[in-house]
Amino acid sequence: MSLWSFPTPLLLASGSMARRVMLEESGLPIEVLPANIDERAVDEALRSAGAVPATIALKLARAKAASVSAQNPGRLVLGADQLLDCSGKIYDKAKDRAEAEKKLADLAGRIHRLTSAAAVLCNGESLFETVSEARLTMRPLDSAAIALYADEAGAALTACAGCYEIEGRGAHLFSRVEGDHFTIRGLPLLELLAGLRAKGWIRL
Amino acid sequence: MSLWSFPTPLLLASGSMARRVMLEESGLPIEVLPANIDERAVDEALRSAGAVPATIALKLARAKAASVSAQNPGRLVLGADQLLDCSGKIYDKAKDRAEAEKKLADLAGRIHRLTSAAAVLCNGESLFETVSEARLTMRPLDSAAIALYADEAGAALTACAGCYEIEGRGAHLFSRVEGDHFTIRGLPLLELLAGLRAKGWIRL
Repeated sequence: MSLWSFPTPLLLASGSMARRVMLEESGLPIEVLPANIDERAVDEALRSAGAVPATIALKLARAKAASVSAQNPGRLVLGADQLLDCSGKIYDKAKDRAEAEKKLADLAGRIHRLTSAAAVLCNGESLFETVSEARLTMRPLDSAAIALYADEAGAALTACAGCYEIEGRGAHLFSRVEGDHFTIRGLPLLELLAGLRAKGWIRL
Repeated sequence: MSLWSFPTPLLLASGSMARRVMLEESGLPIEVLPANIDERAVDEALRSAGAVPATIALKLARAKAASVSAQNPGRLVLGADQLLDCSGKIYDKAKDRAEAEKKLADLAGRIHRLTSAAAVLCNGESLFETVSEARLTMRPLDSAAIALYADEAGAALTACAGCYEIEGRGAHLFSRVEGDHFTIRGLPLLELLAGLRAKGWIRL
């Protein structure tokens, strides 16, 4: 008997390879169809109104899922988003190495928060949403250490909210990690599985 | 410039694929040479004397490293061990599916602890040791859920202390996870990197 009892695979409205891998490793059948939305348009108003990261991440997760759901009636669609904030400031993905190094210099020696949100929709209707947080303490890093890290980090430098994959070279950046690994990688998986289970779509 | 400044690769005295992967992903050069020791002989006396899991795990990590160090003078040798305990009882790896199902039935609905230890030796001398803990809350599971999980879990059922890989099907078992992912996978990596850094062998 399969873990999954919904008639069709879960449709992941995100292009994130980490999210795809987490879902596949958990045994859920998924198809990937990244949403094509203007994230900046969605969240700028919220940010300027001072919304907390959880609110913004949930709104973006919902918007991604809604966009894909509108084109895929009857499918269960998962939208997800992750935000990084530190001392009240939300940091976007770095565009290039120079921006990444500047961001790491900002985060070094401080605690930042990762907020991961998920929204599950069907036929445009939100069935459930969930959000989780992690707190990471970055070691103090001088510019030589940041440059050496940037040499080593590869694509993670600009692909991830925090310029790191903690399971890769990013492990060198931290003295302490609080929060589960799924949240850190961009998906509140335990909470998502609980929601799908409560709906009867996961047998385990 | 490389992250690593010790003249030779780190010698991992453990056959655990998870430990190997964590170290490789962090960018450390490693060679694997699993220790061939009788773990049961090492820890039985400690267990019957009521030693806490951290003491036993450190002793086993040290014994593994010492065994490999004795045959490899001048090399930096890493020994590691992980123990699972729940309400005062230490659980060994399950030998087969029946044992695994019984263990999961014991752990279901309760919090268990994973204790991961690492010891770094050179020429038989302990240079530093470290230990870290994680606490995992397993959902209540009936026998049908345990059987479905066992169908899905594959090799993790008998290869891992807890009968699960949390990054795999194991995610379905938990409602809450406290402690970092490295500790859960069997190596206190953040603390290990800090120790190697303090010795001057990691440049980052």
